[in-house]
Amino acid sequence: MKRNIYLKKKTLDEAKAISSNLASLIHLETEVIPVVNASNRTTAEPVFARISSPPFHCAAMDGIAVRAESTYGASEDSPRILSMGQEAFFVNTGNPIPPEMDAVIMIEEVHLIDPQRVEIRAGAFPWQHIRSMGEDMIASEMVLPAHHKITPYDIGALLASGHLEIPAWKKPRVGILPTGSELLEPNQLSFTDPYPPSEMIESNSYVLSGLILEDGGIPVRHAIVRDDPAKLREALLFLLEETDLVLVIAGSSAGSEDYTRSILEESGEVLAHGVSMMPGKPTLLGRTRNKPVVGIPGYPVSAIMAYEELVRPILHQSLGLTNPERPRIKALPTRKLPSKLGTEEFLRVKVGQVGEKFLASPLPRGSGAITSLTRADGIIRIPPFSEGLNENEIVEVELLRPLKEIQNTIVMVGSHDLTLDLLANLLGGSYPPVYFSSHSVGSLGGILAIRNGACHMAGLHLLDPETGEYNFPYLRQYLTGIDVRVIHLVFREQGLIVQKGNPKGIQGLRDLIRQEISFINRQKGSGTRILLDHTLKMLSLKPGDIQGYEKEEYTHMAVASAVAGEIADAGLGILPAAKAMSLDFIPVAKERYDLVIPSLYFEGEKIKRVIQTIRSDEFKDLVFQMGGYDVSKTGEELLK
Amino acid sequence: MKRNIYLKKKTLDEAKAISSNLASLIHLETEVIPVVNASNRTTAEPVFARISSPPFHCAAMDGIAVRAESTYGASEDSPRILSMGQEAFFVNTGNPIPPEMDAVIMIEEVHLIDPQRVEIRAGAFPWQHIRSMGEDMIASEMVLPAHHKITPYDIGALLASGHLEIPAWKKPRVGILPTGSELLEPNQLSFTDPYPPSEMIESNSYVLSGLILEDGGIPVRHAIVRDDPAKLREALLFLLEETDLVLVIAGSSAGSEDYTRSILEESGEVLAHGVSMMPGKPTLLGRTRNKPVVGIPGYPVSAIMAYEELVRPILHQSLGLTNPERPRIKALPTRKLPSKLGTEEFLRVKVGQVGEKFLASPLPRGSGAITSLTRADGIIRIPPFSEGLNENEIVEVELLRPLKEIQNTIVMVGSHDLTLDLLANLLGGSYPPVYFSSHSVGSLGGILAIRNGACHMAGLHLLDPETGEYNFPYLRQYLTGIDVRVIHLVFREQGLIVQKGNPKGIQGLRDLIRQEISFINRQKGSGTRILLDHTLKMLSLKPGDIQGYEKEEYTHMAVASAVAGEIADAGLGILPAAKAMSLDFIPVAKERYDLVIPSLYFEGEKIKRVIQTIRSDEFKDLVFQMGGYDVSKTGEELLK
Repeated sequence: MKRNIYLKKKTLDEAKAISSNLASLIHLETEVIPVVNASNRTTAEPVFARISSPPFHCAAMDGIAVRAESTYGASEDSPRILSMGQEAFFVNTGNPIPPEMDAVIMIEEVHLIDPQRVEIRAGAFPWQHIRSMGEDMIASEMVLPAHHKITPYDIGALLASGHLEIPAWKKPRVGILPTGSELLEPNQLSFTDPYPPSEMIESNSYVLSGLILEDGGIPVRHAIVRDDPAKLREALLFLLEETDLVLVIAGSSAGSEDYTRSILEESGEVLAHGVSMMPGKPTLLGRTRNKPVVGIPGYPVSAIMAYEELVRPILHQSLGLTNPERPRIKALPTRKLPSKLGTEEFLRVKVGQVGEKFLASPLPRGSGAITSLTRADGIIRIPPFSEGLNENEIVEVELLRPLKEIQNTIVMVGSHDLTLDLLANLLGGSYPPVYFSSHSVGSLGGILAIRNGACHMAGLHLLDPETGEYNFPYLRQYLTGIDVRVIHLVFREQGLIVQKGNPKGIQGLRDLIRQEISFINRQKGSGTRILLDHTLKMLSLKPGDIQGYEKEEYTHMAVASAVAGEIADAGLGILPAAKAMSLDFIPVAKERYDLVIPSLYFEGEKIKRVIQTIRSDEFKDLVFQMGGYDVSKTGEELLK
Repeated sequence: MKRNIYLKKKTLDEAKAISSNLASLIHLETEVIPVVNASNRTTAEPVFARISSPPFHCAAMDGIAVRAESTYGASEDSPRILSMGQEAFFVNTGNPIPPEMDAVIMIEEVHLIDPQRVEIRAGAFPWQHIRSMGEDMIASEMVLPAHHKITPYDIGALLASGHLEIPAWKKPRVGILPTGSELLEPNQLSFTDPYPPSEMIESNSYVLSGLILEDGGIPVRHAIVRDDPAKLREALLFLLEETDLVLVIAGSSAGSEDYTRSILEESGEVLAHGVSMMPGKPTLLGRTRNKPVVGIPGYPVSAIMAYEELVRPILHQSLGLTNPERPRIKALPTRKLPSKLGTEEFLRVKVGQVGEKFLASPLPRGSGAITSLTRADGIIRIPPFSEGLNENEIVEVELLRPLKEIQNTIVMVGSHDLTLDLLANLLGGSYPPVYFSSHSVGSLGGILAIRNGACHMAGLHLLDPETGEYNFPYLRQYLTGIDVRVIHLVFREQGLIVQKGNPKGIQGLRDLIRQEISFINRQKGSGTRILLDHTLKMLSLKPGDIQGYEKEEYTHMAVASAVAGEIADAGLGILPAAKAMSLDFIPVAKERYDLVIPSLYFEGEKIKRVIQTIRSDEFKDLVFQMGGYDVSKTGEELLK
């Protein structure tokens, strides 16, 4: 069953050279398009002015057109009177200068004596306040070069130089062929009949379509083709007739039903199979019928990376345009980022500006996690010759999000609570928006982030077992010398999240030691873990007796999801997480959740907006409606 | 006739505050849109996952799904045999994990004995190679916040979380009302009957339409309305019914036919008239029928600046989006840039990277010159409290063009020749494109730019009157200590450019002293001026005897245009310029035009491409076809 999966893997640079060769197979036709719709299209030829702009000598001001000679010597002491219609003519800005006239006097400097006569008190010099013919563009001059992506500004220059239509390259047509027997067209998803579904929604083709449109191409999507070599071949050949290049999604990996490569080997040529990039390794580059065919991996992030690195350049090259690059900034990773030698890795990161520094926190690396891109602010490329990046080693981040938005983002690190999503929505809905980026690393992680200057605020619910006091003992222990302020967010209920209907009859923590019950835990340093361990101790229960005590998740929702997915029977978490997944909830304890903010940022505009929002009735009402929360002291500053 | 033109002028910041208040008058409705077309639309509500992603526990690899327990103990020494369909099931990536199974073994590690049995040689641990349900998104989790501009990536997350449609803000509708009796609809321009036209082509509305589309709005253009208050009022009220805000183009200045303000005063409220910005001063902000109305100045650059500073933010605010900012770089101005105190000036600049430095050269400041934007690489904002910027004072430039293109641009300074446009086109048409930015400041200006490290190459045709030698004497004089290489471009013919048919019977330079003949000169330091002065001296003609000797233009085409526009009867220039404007040409001298390149850049990739292109037959043929050029030595390196 074992078989040779890839050709000798190509480096990304080698693959790019192949993709550039493939691009040269594409010869776009030209078409004549109306200038008024030409934005973002690409000129197929240089465009030369048909008329000059302005097309005649014209007034640059509202006033009277005169012959300069006839005004010489006019002054306050000896005003000159000009007869209208002979020596002077009213003109508005843009009007042609009447024959023989060669200067304009501004209307503010003209005294109208009667409809026939005006008085002036200063002479005009020749060509004063006149825009001479061709001042902006001279007929026959080049207005735009070939291979130029047209902007709205260009529309103005094209119209003013006498063009209603121009020759543009036809948009490259990109065939998209989603393959896979396990796939469902999005509109086939049913929420009633058998749910959850047993098929995957095909979304890659629509993501690629959106990217192709942005890159100036026309996506031509084929319906999903099952893993059947005959059908696949037929669909590929059909698309090749209709388009300039074809992307075959999935089926280029190593599975028993991955036929893309063999079809290409039959009908054309495979130039690369396997690229040293991550995500994106199972990419395939080839040609059939003298057109490029690209096998795009099936995992969503891999599909996007393969497209952006190897297909986007083909589209730009076919139009003669420089391949776009994202803006870049320098940032510091919040932790060590190991990477595989020999592979170019694309690490998705959240970026935040805390003080003067930009900080980059890595998102999950899995190529199946589309949210690692939708939530990302940027991408770090780790080159093949590197084994990774260290903390405090400055790296370049390609930005996926406008810098200004990143600068208007509050970086919050620590424990997760569902009310933070509400807070984020309210802040994002006010104007100008303040964005909220929350990193779930547990309460202790939040305290460490404050200590390292890596966040604007931290969310904590840390019970001190000695004193029974929340949060402050930890601040005293870990943040000596750092001045912070503490804003109380909510009291909330922690409890056991169990299957709907509680089939295993769990009553409380004591049941966790039962043999048939599997538990899902939270990570060390999280407030919930500390609460669990404290409570177990009070009840004299041994962690070692609990099945699954060593399995850790990082958020309440992940715990609830593990229970819903029957990975575990119970986990400790908050009520709204149980409710969100329609699970049952057995209360264990009520706890205090506070926000800790370095005094350095406390008076800043962004933090002020946060506190103002937390104190609003709108926020408190929404939190109250979620259930499981006590908002009686929400927004109060806690001292001590 | 004099009247009070503006209200007390607002600073740009005051005007922005008013525009933000106007934005709050707009309340967009929501509409449900298909996710697959949602790119660039804005979410009207937060979107929560309807299903988890993956929607079930699924295989992360192609292989067999097993129960981990049943594999414990398998090793090279004691392989384990599993029966297919009972203990093991084939799965491809993305397939659901069959009930009771909890791990996947990669296909490469499985040995198929027969269709009923497989052998494994290593144990699997629970959840190995399985993507657990909700690993990426958990049902009920927030996928996108409200007021989020949707990207193609987001389409993937929305589809995968079970959304086919989402609520989005309707696009803001922007009425555009072009006004002015002097305006022509673009399609009314005729090239036959009376030419040149006596009206201006209306192009602003189409430029604004393009910008509005980029900003996520829908432009609704009204036909041109003549300067008639009744018609204007009617059109404005009509547009206000149909749209969320209205832009009235022109008619907000001080002319006798500028009615926008009075109509707004009648039917609504004028909040600002006159803003301390340049271009863009005659902008008007007001409201009618509780909707924003913006009076946009009529000059093209003013119109765009008024839109970008005061209307673009309204559109973004109405959608709840952060107003976009352009990427910025630090650059050095190539000369002193004086500016008016109290006014925020937007200076359009070409930007070039020469060595490590970015250099910004100002383009014409006139607000009528749309090419000052279409040719610009960036904009420098000179704040109101500044009287301008000095050479060598680092400034921030907002980029209008991708940085990578700027970095791939050859900066050429010096004398202008029409073959440089050809060269630019060929370079831009090769791949990857090299861009060519040429600054016409005359030959001596080019030498100085080389000396100041402000360009990659200079174009010269400088005759040394003493020796009759071209260019080298000047290089020796001005570039001591700077190592340069010289590539010969062309020999070309200089001559007198005169009206078609030569109505004044000009035979040569001697005729220029005739009283009825007016001349248009080139600027000091240009090769053409040096040639003129030298030849006049040889002929014992006095510059003072030539009418118009003191009137200077900066390019051959500008000289030809002045003759075509009957500003002058004759000017010295090159044959292709006369031909381009259908003028007559009287040869005076043949001269050598060379390119001077600092040795520092000579071996660089960009310059290599330039020289290669100059030496190509394609280039030489095209130059030869223009006429007036001798290409017999084109591309040769000149030594000495």
